[in-house]
Amino acid sequence: MKIVNSCPEMRDYSRSLQKNGSTVGFVPTMGALHEGHLSLLKIARRHCGRVVMSVFVNPAQFGPSEDFEKYPRQLEKDCELAENAGCDCVFIPSPRDIYPENYNTYVNVENITGALCGASRPGHFRGVATVVLKLFNIVIPDTAVFGSKDAQQVIVIKRMVEDLNLPVRIIAAPTLREEDGLAMSSRNAYLSAGERADAPLIYKGLTEARELYEGGERAGQSIKNCVVSIFNRSRLLKLEYVEVVDTTQLKPLDVINRPVLIAAACRTVETGTRLIDNIVLGGDLD
Amino acid sequence: MKIVNSCPEMRDYSRSLQKNGSTVGFVPTMGALHEGHLSLLKIARRHCGRVVMSVFVNPAQFGPSEDFEKYPRQLEKDCELAENAGCDCVFIPSPRDIYPENYNTYVNVENITGALCGASRPGHFRGVATVVLKLFNIVIPDTAVFGSKDAQQVIVIKRMVEDLNLPVRIIAAPTLREEDGLAMSSRNAYLSAGERADAPLIYKGLTEARELYEGGERAGQSIKNCVVSIFNRSRLLKLEYVEVVDTTQLKPLDVINRPVLIAAACRTVETGTRLIDNIVLGGDLD
Repeated sequence: MKIVNSCPEMRDYSRSLQKNGSTVGFVPTMGALHEGHLSLLKIARRHCGRVVMSVFVNPAQFGPSEDFEKYPRQLEKDCELAENAGCDCVFIPSPRDIYPENYNTYVNVENITGALCGASRPGHFRGVATVVLKLFNIVIPDTAVFGSKDAQQVIVIKRMVEDLNLPVRIIAAPTLREEDGLAMSSRNAYLSAGERADAPLIYKGLTEARELYEGGERAGQSIKNCVVSIFNRSRLLKLEYVEVVDTTQLKPLDVINRPVLIAAACRTVETGTRLIDNIVLGGDLD
Repeated sequence: MKIVNSCPEMRDYSRSLQKNGSTVGFVPTMGALHEGHLSLLKIARRHCGRVVMSVFVNPAQFGPSEDFEKYPRQLEKDCELAENAGCDCVFIPSPRDIYPENYNTYVNVENITGALCGASRPGHFRGVATVVLKLFNIVIPDTAVFGSKDAQQVIVIKRMVEDLNLPVRIIAAPTLREEDGLAMSSRNAYLSAGERADAPLIYKGLTEARELYEGGERAGQSIKNCVVSIFNRSRLLKLEYVEVVDTTQLKPLDVINRPVLIAAACRTVETGTRLIDNIVLGGDLD
């Protein structure tokens, strides 16, 4: 497996693959790989001749009081895991190469970034959209694979790709879960034992919401109440939001009459860890 | 000469040229071509195997009280002029193709867009950067040529291209002028006879500033005063700004100790036409 640090070298590598008729699948990550990331690599592998993964903990998508400094870093292990999952090339740029002195350009996907996680993380999606656009311009992938756990991220990236006429196909991959239902996340490592024990309530709330929906419930508020009541069973999970929104404009749905995203975020009380999860009903993110 | 309206067709055309080993030079315009535009086409022609020009009056770069509606449109004549200047393909997208329903994505080049024209035209450079990025993603040029009359635009585009890792070479072409020194502009057509008679004072101010500089003057304020005093000879030109700034960060220079951009903007009293011009001393925009 190839390891590339320089942006021009990364582009040359992709160009030479494409010149020889291969397609390039791309999985952008912040490292600290878990099974979820590896499933993205495998999906990229199925769709493309070669697979590139980037590892870049992107300062632009962290707020000043967020966990940029303590975000888990384990480059060597990540490379080993990626290679075993069929990755052909890991791109590991330096922050100085991505954001050089006098760096000034940012991409804003408006409206849909103000809702959900965007409300409590101002600037987060501006940082995400900017770095993803830059990585697309460096890696020039044919296809890129993102995890559905970050549903709003997927929707923002798809909007950006369409709006900016980028010739990249975006695949939203299913969320991988622990046996008890907790969505896999690099941030799960932060949890205390008690928090870890309560964390499956997040997905439990979402699955009970799904059952309500499948039983015919279409009132957004009833669905929200259901999720909230299950969160309230834990004193260790502080709900940040639960929203019932359409899957393209992220507008709240009072009556669910189209594909719907039910998304929740909470913060844990002991370690202050932020956890998110979601389900899509009546359609999908793709 | 080929005329293309659809975005996918435009990309296919460029891709097929590049596959056959040709480079693509690109001149984005808002139409209403004058000799200045034609000189850009000729420069693109010298650098590239094929030349594409776009004609798109970009609503996103006009303020609500600006001249979007009355901006001169003369598509047929533009195509004829372009063909005679060696253009191979004119790309004329519709506003609905460029900004479809639910369009949400904008590029902001921060800091350097707040100065000069950005101060009186909020959102202008956001509109420029966004449409140029989109056009680059559709036309996929190897080289793009911009006129130096819009110096701040050139600096913003160059910054965006570097920041977003776009594989496009930007060429800043010299400003073409009428015999009396007035910079060529599609907006000159708006001028009343009296305004047209006074308009050469803009460039006269800049050339006298150059003479001061060449005589050894290095105080930014003295240079500004010189330009202002010449503007004041006309009651028909209302100065909006004259600035003496460095050519990359657009920061005012009290003492000129590096390449300097002297830029001026004014509005005419009778027709309310906005005119801009500039010179670069001790270096260039490229």
